[in-house]
Amino acid sequence: MDIRALAFDTGGTVLDWHGGLVAALSRTSSSRGVNLDWHAVANDWRRRAMKGIVGQTQPAFNMDDVHRRTLDETLDEFGLQALTPQERDRLWRAWHELDAWPDFPPAQAALRKAFPVVSLTMLPTSLVVDVSRRNGIVWDAVISCEMIGVYKPHALAYATAARWMALEPAQILMVACHNFDLNAAHKAGLRTAFVRRADEWGPEGPPDPRPNMAYDFVVDDFGALVQAVLANR
Amino acid sequence: MDIRALAFDTGGTVLDWHGGLVAALSRTSSSRGVNLDWHAVANDWRRRAMKGIVGQTQPAFNMDDVHRRTLDETLDEFGLQALTPQERDRLWRAWHELDAWPDFPPAQAALRKAFPVVSLTMLPTSLVVDVSRRNGIVWDAVISCEMIGVYKPHALAYATAARWMALEPAQILMVACHNFDLNAAHKAGLRTAFVRRADEWGPEGPPDPRPNMAYDFVVDDFGALVQAVLANR
Repeated sequence: MDIRALAFDTGGTVLDWHGGLVAALSRTSSSRGVNLDWHAVANDWRRRAMKGIVGQTQPAFNMDDVHRRTLDETLDEFGLQALTPQERDRLWRAWHELDAWPDFPPAQAALRKAFPVVSLTMLPTSLVVDVSRRNGIVWDAVISCEMIGVYKPHALAYATAARWMALEPAQILMVACHNFDLNAAHKAGLRTAFVRRADEWGPEGPPDPRPNMAYDFVVDDFGALVQAVLANR
Repeated sequence: MDIRALAFDTGGTVLDWHGGLVAALSRTSSSRGVNLDWHAVANDWRRRAMKGIVGQTQPAFNMDDVHRRTLDETLDEFGLQALTPQERDRLWRAWHELDAWPDFPPAQAALRKAFPVVSLTMLPTSLVVDVSRRNGIVWDAVISCEMIGVYKPHALAYATAARWMALEPAQILMVACHNFDLNAAHKAGLRTAFVRRADEWGPEGPPDPRPNMAYDFVVDDFGALVQAVLANR
């Protein structure tokens, strides 16, 4: 292996969207005396948003737009139609205020000493900027599919990122906790690292938790990723 | 003014391309006993490269490609045809190894505490990544015209950057040492800051050194920019 840079999926791999959305939903609801299974509401929202963006080519919208539209669908689904536009905007804004998984910032900083490290994400550029500033994460570049115009797992998303990084695909290690992303990255010629995120979907557990092929690295946490990647130099 | 983020031109505004190219050219030539006005050679190369990229729409090349092609033209012009492909590659590579102006990194770090700060540049993404790592510069995002597909001073370059930053153009302060860039940024609705870089073109001085309109800020160095921008919050 001749790894020259790392690309991180960011949505579920770096950010605890489930925890952040559940907190925002229960904050909003507590003022209304509503009580629902907020884990289920958050996961429904996420599922709809992913369906709305995955694989898109030259969409007229970005993932912020999809989050706003699918929030309305989820609130309808769970009988929460009474929420005001202001409450909906606050919920939507929670995406820009997510926390990173606690093991990520120190590991990413250690990896960045050895390699350029980029975010390669379906999230909008401005969302990654906001959450990165909030969590003290520094990227060498944010490569949002919004910029590419083509969304993962489309092969062009990985190929364009490699071109912008001026590297061969095989010189880039794609890191994610999702098979669909890593399968496509592998097919596009990138190296692959699967990092388990057992809590990504909250108590119900991730829908696809086990590696479905032989990735170059399979680790339980980001600390183990740092050790494995640096040992392989 | 309601400034929410800063965008820096990077080529001449942040990087001392003239000093870096002159050093690389004289290194190459010293081994050959050639002696020329390396300032003139460097400036000829830069002028040709700018002409090859400014205002381009969906080009099939990026500025690294333009640097490689125009290097050959400049070497022909100055009777340096004898340089080998290896020597040419080393010269071309000098663009990825430039130093920043010494007053830039501390000023940029101070501004980044208050605002997101991005590179908005005609240089390729990978070039900005390389020189930023070398100079200890951290950007919230690198917005290369390579990613936009449209090059400054085309209005779409500024509009797309604003869209990706999820800001109104008037919420972005464009910082540059070039009138053509700031004139276009102003026309696209951005706020503007002119920072003088008296040494950008070496001893011959910059071709267009004086602000040609009333920018929001006009300063002599990056320290003064920090003071002026932070005082305006």
